[in-house]
Amino acid sequence: MCMLQTIRGMRDLDPQLARKKNFVLAICKETFEKYGFKPLETPAVEYLELLTKKGSAGEEIEKEIYSFEDKSGRKLGLRFDLTVPMSRYVASNPTLRLPFKRYQIGSVYRYDRPQEKRYREFTQADIDIVGSNSIIAEFEIIAVVIEICQKLELKNFYIKINSRKLLEEIAKCCNIPNDKIKECFRCIDKLDKIGWEGVEKELKAYSLETKICEVVKNNNFESTIKMIEKNKGNEDCIKELKELFELLKKFSLDKYVKLDLSLARGLEYYTAIVFEVVADGPSIAGGGRYDRLIGTYGSKDIPAVGISFGVDRVIDNMKKGFGTESKILIIPANETIKTQALEFVQKLRENNIASEIDLMNRNISKNLDYANKEGIPFVIVLGDKELKEKKFSLKDMKTGKETLLKLDEIGKLKEIIGK
Amino acid sequence: MCMLQTIRGMRDLDPQLARKKNFVLAICKETFEKYGFKPLETPAVEYLELLTKKGSAGEEIEKEIYSFEDKSGRKLGLRFDLTVPMSRYVASNPTLRLPFKRYQIGSVYRYDRPQEKRYREFTQADIDIVGSNSIIAEFEIIAVVIEICQKLELKNFYIKINSRKLLEEIAKCCNIPNDKIKECFRCIDKLDKIGWEGVEKELKAYSLETKICEVVKNNNFESTIKMIEKNKGNEDCIKELKELFELLKKFSLDKYVKLDLSLARGLEYYTAIVFEVVADGPSIAGGGRYDRLIGTYGSKDIPAVGISFGVDRVIDNMKKGFGTESKILIIPANETIKTQALEFVQKLRENNIASEIDLMNRNISKNLDYANKEGIPFVIVLGDKELKEKKFSLKDMKTGKETLLKLDEIGKLKEIIGK
Repeated sequence: MCMLQTIRGMRDLDPQLARKKNFVLAICKETFEKYGFKPLETPAVEYLELLTKKGSAGEEIEKEIYSFEDKSGRKLGLRFDLTVPMSRYVASNPTLRLPFKRYQIGSVYRYDRPQEKRYREFTQADIDIVGSNSIIAEFEIIAVVIEICQKLELKNFYIKINSRKLLEEIAKCCNIPNDKIKECFRCIDKLDKIGWEGVEKELKAYSLETKICEVVKNNNFESTIKMIEKNKGNEDCIKELKELFELLKKFSLDKYVKLDLSLARGLEYYTAIVFEVVADGPSIAGGGRYDRLIGTYGSKDIPAVGISFGVDRVIDNMKKGFGTESKILIIPANETIKTQALEFVQKLRENNIASEIDLMNRNISKNLDYANKEGIPFVIVLGDKELKEKKFSLKDMKTGKETLLKLDEIGKLKEIIGK
Repeated sequence: MCMLQTIRGMRDLDPQLARKKNFVLAICKETFEKYGFKPLETPAVEYLELLTKKGSAGEEIEKEIYSFEDKSGRKLGLRFDLTVPMSRYVASNPTLRLPFKRYQIGSVYRYDRPQEKRYREFTQADIDIVGSNSIIAEFEIIAVVIEICQKLELKNFYIKINSRKLLEEIAKCCNIPNDKIKECFRCIDKLDKIGWEGVEKELKAYSLETKICEVVKNNNFESTIKMIEKNKGNEDCIKELKELFELLKKFSLDKYVKLDLSLARGLEYYTAIVFEVVADGPSIAGGGRYDRLIGTYGSKDIPAVGISFGVDRVIDNMKKGFGTESKILIIPANETIKTQALEFVQKLRENNIASEIDLMNRNISKNLDYANKEGIPFVIVLGDKELKEKKFSLKDMKTGKETLLKLDEIGKLKEIIGK
């Protein structure tokens, strides 16, 4: 029966995965707030006109927007990222105090070809700094990213850094006409998917020279600088990159970053420095500076820089597992003492001990089996004897060890279960 | 420009509101987990066939589903609640261990007439207990609700309780034909909106007797019981309600609950006890038992009971405000010491002091103005003198009081800012 499935490309997060997600999001939130980012939430549905506005998504992503009409004929779409809605929020609030450092965590939607570990609904955790031209803004974004990757104990993570402006200068040196730069970047952006040969083929399909591939593949900052100098190109982008790398070095973060001239980033709105985080595999975060996006919606340009974490990628690769919420299962030995058992579990909860009581009228052995399979670490069987003697036995399901405690020894119980 | 607005009926949560929401959700999550509920997440988009399946939403809500076709012609819809998707999850996982106590927090969508404080996208925080027939399940749901309302310091909250089965028995006593009971309940459910006169009018429009209004308005449990006994109706529902009220009394929770024979609940899937939480105004949570919903998707019925919190209603009525994430703003007195100032703010962050640094190249007075308007409680101005003497002054923006501290006295600083 088809309706029993999630729709193509979307998925349920079962408790195991949902716990991982909660863990990742708690780390993101805590780190974002430490850096002074504040929360914002925007709807999942926006006017299609906003999402497809020239200068926002770009052709590639526009094709992937879930779009539809509501019952009054309004053309709507599900958001494909959190940056465009945030930019709408800024553009529509002209009295907003700057800098606006905001974080947002939410689902975004892309009608993409579903592939392994790519979903049509996925969660992004975003931070953006709106209003600042300072390179310290880029630095802060990268510092947050590194701290989160460290807290998540991601192995071999590093941040690729490039500049769209630099790439433009390179393109100019390689005879790419100004009006073809967008197409050229779109080709280079496909590198991870189609390799260098593929990129060259695509460039040729646009009748573009492939010399840029050589330069970018070489990835040599010094020789690229010389080339741009010789071509009398704009050298601001070089200054910016140098400043950023110096700052990162100053804070011993340079070991986590790498210049990567092939990094173009898919979204059209980026204007200057761009970055992407990789950790043993596909990218888990990406972002950059987009100084003109907000201006496309409002009257004036407002500079901005930010990054998106792809939370699904992180949790799909996470080895770490998480235990049940309940620390203790209370098993009433018979029907008649149910209310007393409930009183006891309510007392545990009052003492902040997450616990549950049999709700299925199962016998003791079936309850033990449930606790075991579920992974609930402790059980307490309560019977007439226990209630009469005001003592109970706390059983550690892993070791099998039982500890005899008085009914009111909640403090001791907490110690044993490690709370 | 229309695209600069959120779409009709949906809204942005600015940082003030988003902080309130985070506060409410943290309380929900903590309380849910203490009672042994585990997290589940399902997509916002489902097959329309699932959402409109007979026995789930019911006619009234079906009209409100955002439905559309994807690019492959699949008929999809945005979820209108979290219960139906969870029921799909359970029905499609026949080996799921029961009881399945799950919580889920997420946005749901209803193409409703937008009214004050009713939104077309709103957040629900749900708990459900799947697999249990025990009245303790109802008790736990209600106990969680009461604890959350207490933690949120909601004034004058109470929980209306009724039983669909009881209401059915009443309907039978009042000559409502079996095949008209759905319509009858739908009329009664509109009471809050249209009043008793309106309900009577609607009943008449269906050619139904209005005697039920009298009984329900009277709200007398004892006389209702007698009426059902006389009519030789099914008395199970009476037993269930009595059991639940006794249990609530035993735990001194009866002061928070009230029998309300007029409570019908809008969703069609409820089968027995239903409840609704009110707190000085419209309902903020509602739920009940739905023993047949999961069965409509799978092969066999699985009993279930749960509740949804309407998070938007709670935050819209919340007086309590929340301060900025940043506790301190660091102001470099001039361009040249920016890097040192950044080193200092990074040190604060390492010590878990949420803080920010000027990113706008503003002068001191403009920075003070920013901190003031933004509500950042403390500022530190760093200049050449401060760095040379390794001392700085911590300014309390509320009292104006300044404290002189050494650059490495982070412990003292923490004490003063109350961390």
